[in-house]
Formats: sequence, structure tokens, C-alpha cells
Amino acid sequence: MNKLSIGVDLGGTNLRIAAVDEQGTLVEKITLGTKISLGRDHVIDEMCDAIQRVSEKYKNAAPLLGIGIGVPGIIDMQTGLLRESPNLPGWAEYPVRAEIERRLKTIVILENDANVAALGEKWLGAAKEYSDVAMLTLGTGVGGGLVIGGEIWRGANGMAGEFGHTTVEPAGHPCGCGNRGCLEQYASATAVVRLAREAIAKNSASGLAGAAHADAEFSAKSIFNLAIQGDEDARRIFRYVGRCLGIVLSSLVNSLNFPIYVIGGGVSSAWEAFSPAIFDELRRRALVYAATAPYDPSATLEGASAHVKAGPGHKTIITRALLGSDAGLYGAARLPMIAKQ
Amino acid sequence: MNKLSIGVDLGGTNLRIAAVDEQGTLVEKITLGTKISLGRDHVIDEMCDAIQRVSEKYKNAAPLLGIGIGVPGIIDMQTGLLRESPNLPGWAEYPVRAEIERRLKTIVILENDANVAALGEKWLGAAKEYSDVAMLTLGTGVGGGLVIGGEIWRGANGMAGEFGHTTVEPAGHPCGCGNRGCLEQYASATAVVRLAREAIAKNSASGLAGAAHADAEFSAKSIFNLAIQGDEDARRIFRYVGRCLGIVLSSLVNSLNFPIYVIGGGVSSAWEAFSPAIFDELRRRALVYAATAPYDPSATLEGASAHVKAGPGHKTIITRALLGSDAGLYGAARLPMIAKQ
Repeated sequence: MNKLSIGVDLGGTNLRIAAVDEQGTLVEKITLGTKISLGRDHVIDEMCDAIQRVSEKYKNAAPLLGIGIGVPGIIDMQTGLLRESPNLPGWAEYPVRAEIERRLKTIVILENDANVAALGEKWLGAAKEYSDVAMLTLGTGVGGGLVIGGEIWRGANGMAGEFGHTTVEPAGHPCGCGNRGCLEQYASATAVVRLAREAIAKNSASGLAGAAHADAEFSAKSIFNLAIQGDEDARRIFRYVGRCLGIVLSSLVNSLNFPIYVIGGGVSSAWEAFSPAIFDELRRRALVYAATAPYDPSATLEGASAHVKAGPGHKTIITRALLGSDAGLYGAARLPMIAKQ
Repeated sequence: MNKLSIGVDLGGTNLRIAAVDEQGTLVEKITLGTKISLGRDHVIDEMCDAIQRVSEKYKNAAPLLGIGIGVPGIIDMQTGLLRESPNLPGWAEYPVRAEIERRLKTIVILENDANVAALGEKWLGAAKEYSDVAMLTLGTGVGGGLVIGGEIWRGANGMAGEFGHTTVEPAGHPCGCGNRGCLEQYASATAVVRLAREAIAKNSASGLAGAAHADAEFSAKSIFNLAIQGDEDARRIFRYVGRCLGIVLSSLVNSLNFPIYVIGGGVSSAWEAFSPAIFDELRRRALVYAATAPYDPSATLEGASAHVKAGPGHKTIITRALLGSDAGLYGAARLPMIAKQ
């Protein structure tokens, strides 16, 4: 058997642990709820127990390379401190890495959850053939990760990839980060529900109002279901989501000229509903996209497309993620495999 | 003497040639006008004559490493073709590199002008201590260049760094690229003049109107002169320039978390007039900036600044370029010195 490593996806809701081999085969997966209300130490206990069970089970079959953990928040890579994590209240300034290394006596690598998702998609998913990848994760918020030259790009302070806080509308909806009009306010699951409630409040969306009334857990998923049933108000919301994503992707494509951009996270299940608007915006707004877009016979050549001649070379791919909610788990498991000694 | 290389800055207006040694000492500089109206071949003749004169002069003193040429436009790095260049009409699809190599029998490296400016500032200018640099060049248009890991980041098609076409206002002023509301429409010299004429047309800017009337070449520079004399309308224009730059820089800082961002080009002479608005926007809009900004006792802690605790590590520097119009010349000369064989 190949060498193994253990990936952990420590989310605000789910705690998942998987043993993955060097070929990317998932050997075992454990899914637990993250019992945040029981406190940090309880969560760490559960995590370490599960890791220990898995590593015991395979210890005679394959050597363990180490443990990679994806965490929502800003990590100090030098010290392994979790500097800040809005989804893990009470964890700020906690020495996650040192504590787990002390308990399990093995190498532990912490990484931001959006970064490990990008690494997972680069290793085994939509961006497998590419070494330069930008990934946007549309979940409760909007996360982002960059892979440059095959490696996670952390930036000078481990804070790179915050695409969710790109300004889409300078005077737009206030964001928790202090800015206004951030992408996160238009393309997260939270935003989809807010946009639906705004449409309902205007008395102009009977389908949405009915669903909100009938469904106690009125969610982005309920609104997507309405959209695929043809409800025009629900469809309009996802077109707007796509438009905002398209504006941000246009800037990224113009700035980075990467070969591939991957959209993941829960909201990406609504790909059919929002992606046409993304491509509309890209064709109009991104001269680099217009010059490098894959041939699309249905595209009308207007705006940017008419200006810049498509030349030879790479085509710019904008695509949905392939690994679903496992992207972060695979990416976390990958960390010890590629760690520099 | 150190080895020499020859840098060429081939602009739409000026053609400049310099011999620079490996320490960055400018040994000789020739400035010519780019006589575009006399045609491509005439410009190439003049350029090659000047290069030959310089290389003859120093050929016994120092070995010539090669020639680097900064060109406004999109270059196919494989073939050395200039694929497109709005400022050099008639040069599209012209094999610039092959033609000059044929004439001069030495190594020629072509590079986009905004990329060489970034490389120049990284080698000898404002970003000397850094290996990851983003540079915005505010000239007739707004160009951009990225240096990652000490090397120019060209992207998959040699088109990276088009920060000038980042959307600032989704429904804003139409841009030549096909988009609306591009940064270039608010932060270039052309934009400064347009914004002034718009203010004059509203009958609300007597200082600007007087200057436009008196000055046949009413330019961004004239408007900056008014601003430093205290004209409130002129000052408002530069505040708006800074605001738009701040929106784009906020997204770049959040996405890349680079240690340094450099603003160059002619309009950067108005730094005092527009930079305060840049920092205002950054503090409000960029959580990564708020967490990494150099300590500024005059800053009020509002918005993002209050959310994210400034941690240890690198500070994010936003600064003006140091090499002025020579950045591109130095960067071009640097190309043969760092070329991989």
C-alpha cells in the first residue's frame, strides 16, 4: 500500500476526517458534527480520537506521512496559531497545531479551508492538469484560494485569496468585513436567501413567498429548486449571483491570466442557474477572457470580443468544482505529502 | 567593467535606449521621438541604429549580454510576435524580435511595457527589497505588471496584469476594451482630463474652466497644478481618482496579500493629491489591509480596521514608484541579465 496521510476538514458545522493514500484514493472517511457549543476542547478531543482510530487501523499497512487540517480562518503558518476564525468562536489565538502535535506525536499542518479546497481540486479535481488555479468557494460566505506554480499561494501574511471581499458595488450592501458591496453579499448562500427575502418584501415574488412560508428552512437550495422549476423571480436571483461573480472573475482573469478558475462550495450546485450570466459578463468585461475564451459558437461577438483577436495558446477555463464537499478533505490530506522538510 | 545590457523603451511617443550595467548603473541613454507616422520600418531603423551606436561604443569595455525591449502591447513570448498594440498602429502580428535579432545578431527579449516597469521598480526602485510586487502605471491608459517570486508573471497567454481593466463601477463610463467602468476610465491622465471637462460642462468649476481656456494643452498636469494651488474642483477630481484606485487596490490586497504595491506613470506625480483617498478606501474596504497596514496614528479605527486585529508579520506597503519614466528602461535592460538560457 502507498503511504497514507490523514486529512481533516474542521468546519463550523461538520468535522470530517479521512485517510487518503498518495494516489488520492480515499481509504476511510469519518463524518462528525462539529459540536461548537460544547467548547473547543471537546472538539479537539473528538478530532484526536477519530484521527487515532484511523491511524491505529492502518498503522501496520502503510506508513503515516502526517495530518493536514483545513480550518476556516487566518492561520499564522510560523506558529500554527489560529489567529482569527469567525466560524469557530473561542478559537482565536489558540495554538491548534502545537496542541494536536502534542497529543498525537506526529506532523500536523494547518491550512486555511479555502486554500485546501483549491489544493484538492488541483490535485484530483477540476484543475488536475494545471499548476495555476484560482478557486472561489460559495458557501455560507465566499472563500477563495490560489495555487501558483503548483503550490498554495498564502501571501505575505497567510491571508491571500479573499476574493469574497472584492468590491462589486462600491455603494452596495454592507459586509461584515467593514466594506460595502463585497462579492460575499451577492454570491454566498446567505446572500441568495437575503436577495430572495428582499424580492418577497417588495411583494413581487409569489413563488418565493410561498416557498418561504411553507419551508421553515428556506435556503439557497429551496430557491434553486424553484429556479429549476422555472420560477422567474428565483431565476433572476441566480442571474444576479452570476453577474456579480462574472464581474469579480473578469477582474481576476484580467489580472492573473490563469488557465483555470474553479467555482465550488454548496451554491455551486446551482451552476446551471448562475453560470450563463458569468460568461456574459466575462465576454463583455474581460479583454483577456475575450482573447482566450474557448470557442463558443453561441456567443455573440460584441464588446470586448470584437476588439481583441483570439490568438493561439491556452484557453481560459471557468468551471465548477468536481470534488464537491470533499475538495477540502483531499486538499488537507495532500498537505503532508507535499510539505517541504 | 561589469557586463552591459541594452534596454529599450519603445513607447507610442518616446523611443529611449540605454546601456545599463549589472549593478544598475546607467552608462548611457539616448532619447528619440517615436516617429510612428513615418512607419514601422523607420522606427525599427532608428532603434537599431541607436542600439548599434551604443554597443559599438562599449564593445571593448564590457561584454554585451543582450537587448531587452519594453513594448506597449501583447507579446507572444514563444514567437516574439507583437500580437496587438493600440499605441503602435500597424505593428500587429509583426515579428519584432526576429527582425531585430536578424539585424543586430544578438539576443533580443521583448516584454510588455508595464511588466518591465514593474521589473525595474523591483530591481532598483520602490520594491527593491521584495520578490512579490504589483505595479500600476497611470499614464495615457492604466497598465499593470506583476512580479511573483522575483520574476515577471505573464500568465498563461502573456496577458496578466491588466489592472486598468478592473471594473470599478459596473454601470460606469464605457471603456475602449468593451467593458464599462474600468479603472482606466477613472485613473489615467486621459480620465483626469475627461473628469475635469465633465466638471466644467456642469458650469460648476470656474478654476478648471479658466485653465482649460488659457491652456491649449489642458492636461492632467495642469489640473494637478490647480489642485496644489488649492482649487477645490481640481482636488475633488484627484480624490475621486484615489477612491477608484483604492477600490481596485483593496481587491488586489485582499486577493494577493503581496507585501508591496507600487503606483507609477505620469499621473503618479499627483501622489499627494490622490493618495489620501487610496488609504481611506483601503482601510474601509480591505480586511487584509486593515490587518497588515503599517501603524498610522492618524487613522481612525472604523470599518474593517476594527474587526481584524493587526497581527505580527509583514506590513502591506502601498507606495509611489521611485524610478519615474526610467522604470521601464531599467526593467528592459534587466531582461537579458535574468533570462534563462
